[in-house]
Amino acid sequence: MSSDVQLADIQAAAARIAGIAHRTPVLTSRSFDAVAGASVFFKCENFQRGGAFKIRGASNFIYSIPKDQLSRGVVTYSSGNHAQAVAIAAASVGIQATIVMPDDAPKSKMAATRGYGARVVTYDRLHEDREAIGRRISEETGATVVPPFDHPWTIAGQGTVALELLAEVQDLDALVVQIGGGGLISGCSIAAKALNPSIRIFGVEPEDGNDTYLSRRAGERVEIPMPQTIADGLRSPKPGAITFPIVQKHVEDIILVSDDEIRDTMKFLLARMKIVVEPSGAVPAAALYHRKLPKELKKIGAIVSGGNVDLEFLQRLGN
Amino acid sequence: MSSDVQLADIQAAAARIAGIAHRTPVLTSRSFDAVAGASVFFKCENFQRGGAFKIRGASNFIYSIPKDQLSRGVVTYSSGNHAQAVAIAAASVGIQATIVMPDDAPKSKMAATRGYGARVVTYDRLHEDREAIGRRISEETGATVVPPFDHPWTIAGQGTVALELLAEVQDLDALVVQIGGGGLISGCSIAAKALNPSIRIFGVEPEDGNDTYLSRRAGERVEIPMPQTIADGLRSPKPGAITFPIVQKHVEDIILVSDDEIRDTMKFLLARMKIVVEPSGAVPAAALYHRKLPKELKKIGAIVSGGNVDLEFLQRLGN
Repeated sequence: MSSDVQLADIQAAAARIAGIAHRTPVLTSRSFDAVAGASVFFKCENFQRGGAFKIRGASNFIYSIPKDQLSRGVVTYSSGNHAQAVAIAAASVGIQATIVMPDDAPKSKMAATRGYGARVVTYDRLHEDREAIGRRISEETGATVVPPFDHPWTIAGQGTVALELLAEVQDLDALVVQIGGGGLISGCSIAAKALNPSIRIFGVEPEDGNDTYLSRRAGERVEIPMPQTIADGLRSPKPGAITFPIVQKHVEDIILVSDDEIRDTMKFLLARMKIVVEPSGAVPAAALYHRKLPKELKKIGAIVSGGNVDLEFLQRLGN
Repeated sequence: MSSDVQLADIQAAAARIAGIAHRTPVLTSRSFDAVAGASVFFKCENFQRGGAFKIRGASNFIYSIPKDQLSRGVVTYSSGNHAQAVAIAAASVGIQATIVMPDDAPKSKMAATRGYGARVVTYDRLHEDREAIGRRISEETGATVVPPFDHPWTIAGQGTVALELLAEVQDLDALVVQIGGGGLISGCSIAAKALNPSIRIFGVEPEDGNDTYLSRRAGERVEIPMPQTIADGLRSPKPGAITFPIVQKHVEDIILVSDDEIRDTMKFLLARMKIVVEPSGAVPAAALYHRKLPKELKKIGAIVSGGNVDLEFLQRLGN
């Protein structure tokens, strides 16, 4: 596969991951629509295996590794949804996954990752470089590094989200997708534009994680200080080398939402739609809830990318 | 329609209510299954319009009222999900709904009911009889009383929950349903047994709302003091005259769950399955989560009847 991901690659990914990823439901809500002023179709990846869409890209990547290489295992560095996804996908084919995590990561996350059979290697966040540790483990063991977003196999896997959504809901005016490193919006915009060339694609970033927004204004990839937004899954300082040109090609505009807007929206999704959505997962919904999209859009797909949030966080939402 | 509800009545109800009730998704969870020791298919009526299954019975009832009578409106007494369901169904055909509510009902519930266009009549819970007030309004205005459970039209409407579940999931060993007045389990057991005669039906009640459990032991309808369980939707003191014989005929056993078991289960559903379920809605899941069903059952349908719970309640779950 070249770095030029096509619809056929995404369709092949869908077949490859059918045994491990759920086909997630699409939910609608009249009360949300009334606030948003449009019919919104939520693709609910919070119900995905591992609690987020990441299993799609991780499993498509791992299942695409040649067999002799695959047997030497995989390694990744993440304390988030990608780590769990790699652990689950590796376990499904019986290979060793090594996850490099900061030594102050929540014990519950380490335990969950080990629960999937992965080996956890911890590092000191202040004095060590996780990528260097990952590379060293890869060199020593022959394990393949599984990138979280900037790879054609990962992008093709994430694109299956839009493939499923557009198969279920026809004639969407627009698709709204959160942007961290850009893997999800890259795959989804390729799939959506191939199936429906007139669909309009909007990216949404947290105000304090606006690297792609700034990069578009600059016309080239810009790096920002590590974002502090509550949308922890979108704390990416720089768009990917592969994802950014795809965003440039397919995405009409990038919308920013504040942490308060994300919280408001999470609360509405919880209280009225009865779903638990993590801050990163609620970012497209927040743009719609606060009517930040063009008014003429009447039938809109929005991705709820994940639901992994501590109960304590939800408790604070109520206050 | 006689009081003898048949599959055909439930199928007719499904056609009648198709424009107002959602076809709700069926969710599964590997982590729940691991705890329960079985494959569980959750029919998620917490995503239903109005946040609970009640819209099915209420709309089937209202749409079955002869036209000249219907124009005089409907009346019901409830501070719960049935009230909202009646208000929504009445608004959908442009008739007046009057809801009799205690004057200490949460202001938010009164506002929501009025928001659907219903008239709210309040009463003093300690000194007045809500049924008498309902009857008086009915006599004065000609409005039809919409019963919450003990009527063939209501039962047929609620049975559409099982109709949808069994159309989507084949070969269930068992179906597990919460019991308040018995409308939901009556309709669902009739539909399920007609479509799959070998399916086993289990009812679940809160320990402090065990009127149907005691009635089965006594062989006749027993009345208990008004239950105090957190499962507020199941605070029924006595099974229905129409529902109880149906439960006697189709339900194999009735299982009891404690309020603590309901809380545990709500917390798991929230944290791991990412869904908001009200206490009454979590009662069948609680029986499965605490392995109270026969071990040989391996493929089980369970109804999540609603999701209307205050955020404050969810906040207390975390502690």
